[in-house]
Amino acid sequence: MSEQMGIQSVCFSNPPYLISSSSVVGTKEREGPLGGKFDVEGEDDYFGSDNWEAAESALQKKALEIMMGKAGVVPEDIRYLFAGDLLGQSVATSFGLQSFGIPLIGLYGACSTAGLALSLAAMTVAAGYADLAAAVTSSHFASAEKQFRFPLEYANQRPLSTTWTVTGSGAFLLPSRKKAEEMRKRAFREKVYAEEESELVSAKWTNRYDVKITGVTTGQIVDFGVRDSMNMGAAMAPAAKDVIETHLRDFGRVPEDYDRIITGDLGKIGREILIHLLREKDIDISGNHTDCGIEIFDCEKQGTGSGGSGCGCSAVTLSAHFLPMLFSGEIKRILFVPTGALLSKISFNEGQNVPGIAHAVVLERCDPCKPK
Amino acid sequence: MSEQMGIQSVCFSNPPYLISSSSVVGTKEREGPLGGKFDVEGEDDYFGSDNWEAAESALQKKALEIMMGKAGVVPEDIRYLFAGDLLGQSVATSFGLQSFGIPLIGLYGACSTAGLALSLAAMTVAAGYADLAAAVTSSHFASAEKQFRFPLEYANQRPLSTTWTVTGSGAFLLPSRKKAEEMRKRAFREKVYAEEESELVSAKWTNRYDVKITGVTTGQIVDFGVRDSMNMGAAMAPAAKDVIETHLRDFGRVPEDYDRIITGDLGKIGREILIHLLREKDIDISGNHTDCGIEIFDCEKQGTGSGGSGCGCSAVTLSAHFLPMLFSGEIKRILFVPTGALLSKISFNEGQNVPGIAHAVVLERCDPCKPK
Repeated sequence: MSEQMGIQSVCFSNPPYLISSSSVVGTKEREGPLGGKFDVEGEDDYFGSDNWEAAESALQKKALEIMMGKAGVVPEDIRYLFAGDLLGQSVATSFGLQSFGIPLIGLYGACSTAGLALSLAAMTVAAGYADLAAAVTSSHFASAEKQFRFPLEYANQRPLSTTWTVTGSGAFLLPSRKKAEEMRKRAFREKVYAEEESELVSAKWTNRYDVKITGVTTGQIVDFGVRDSMNMGAAMAPAAKDVIETHLRDFGRVPEDYDRIITGDLGKIGREILIHLLREKDIDISGNHTDCGIEIFDCEKQGTGSGGSGCGCSAVTLSAHFLPMLFSGEIKRILFVPTGALLSKISFNEGQNVPGIAHAVVLERCDPCKPK
Repeated sequence: MSEQMGIQSVCFSNPPYLISSSSVVGTKEREGPLGGKFDVEGEDDYFGSDNWEAAESALQKKALEIMMGKAGVVPEDIRYLFAGDLLGQSVATSFGLQSFGIPLIGLYGACSTAGLALSLAAMTVAAGYADLAAAVTSSHFASAEKQFRFPLEYANQRPLSTTWTVTGSGAFLLPSRKKAEEMRKRAFREKVYAEEESELVSAKWTNRYDVKITGVTTGQIVDFGVRDSMNMGAAMAPAAKDVIETHLRDFGRVPEDYDRIITGDLGKIGREILIHLLREKDIDISGNHTDCGIEIFDCEKQGTGSGGSGCGCSAVTLSAHFLPMLFSGEIKRILFVPTGALLSKISFNEGQNVPGIAHAVVLERCDPCKPK
């Protein structure tokens, strides 16, 4: 059995479904253009915790709980949890997820981690190693500022090129076809599943059984020599370009094969660079490209610089904004490309560049699995 | 196809081989009981770099290069690189591996990362997603002290319960059966492969084609309430107990089915706790348990407290000490269980516990694959 496509992709012969997801966000996200679409929108950004790191852990815990609740599964049903965050030693993940008792694959890909988690969860389910796997990622504005730049109390000014780390966590549930059929059957029996539901508000709360992850392209580190930690979009755009170009070549596709090509958190500056870099390779994605970091904030009104960023940015935007569009049939196939900037406070202070990495995941609507 | 075993294990129906590995270490490791067995033993701990983080990156780069050199492969041959380290945002990995241009799966499992990397690489190859995957992990005493405790210049005293972070990196190459057959054929033709070689010194430098990874058990986070970051062995022992107990139950095995059960870096104190905790479950591993952290240093002579630790500890000890024993036939089957303590300087200062995690990998000698 070989499912390898091209030089760095996999096309699943037995693709997993993505049937449930959740999004938990903070106040700034609630006030943005997608406000009202998220499952939980915090009253404040503490989520009942007394420090920012614990608040981020609380986000992950809540996201996983809600996602499991929607799907009617318990932690024992989930065989692997693929998860990560931006903090040193991934402490938001460790302390957020420890109570579930699910075997944990800890990941680090900076803000590309949502792509990495979905890729590996899909590979694991498609290979038959699990009937049900979950992916969770998070970021928090205040814990990220403290981790990468300055504590909020320092009140430093931010150049317009900076992105604003999203306070949020998204969780996703991937069953095998067999498991999806079982779950759909049960949901149908319990009448919690709406056969022909098309309104977004219902799709948000109702499991659907017609979106699959059909392929992935795993990215490599790309260093274009950017040294400005206040311009992450520029640092990550070359990696996004690299993985999108490779993906299209590996799958023999053109940008128009996708209703949307959705990067994670390039922001406005990164988007421009990405489109420019791909044009140099005769690939034009300007018509169907968008970026989660651009969708989630109204930068001019909200003062969020170039856009949103963080492991949570792409995860919550996929869950609250793009998945419902896939479920409703408004769009049929997307290429989801979370992007990460590889730096730490130490690497930055030691004068290292900020290389980027990005991972691409194909999500598509297909014939729903039918209960027998 | 289902290869799931019990509640949290996988048994491969098409297991990958482990044919090449390497170990690069610093001065303290050279002076320890395993000195002379490592592929590269540094003259100093800088490895040509001017700071500790860059030194750790240099370790990873060197380890991957040497491992590839032994196997006669180039970066383009390797489809996935599974890698991680202990530093915030995994910067040793990002800057150590970026020049290879191999699709990168960044992992974080604290000192258990070598287990996680080998598990995922094995799962990926066994599923047919790659014919060749590599796993690399590292740690460095000075970068870890700076990251988790105090910079060396502070010259703090260390209680006897502390472990000493190993300065080292280990790399491993996992081909599919088909690829291993191809490589063996080529090596045979080129006469770089010694058919009946049994001396360790030769096994170290010669690829062998008779060790497979036949199964893995992925651990979950276990928190026993330990709050002492100077006693990592105690923090990790409950997680090691959990994954070993589950592994034996999932596979229907007893400790005697393994020639060695090898934990990563529990040290002397952690080892005692582990043996005690398993005895409470009527499992006695005292006869065949050992710990990489105990093997690598002579703690009394070298002043290394309870033993060695770090993502590099288990990796270099497996590569330099245990794999040659498997290759030579001295031992037939081992359970390799790297152990990790989940904390950061921030989580520790905020008063969080230090939970543990451990991942188990079965390595066994079997009939060598034969060139046709």
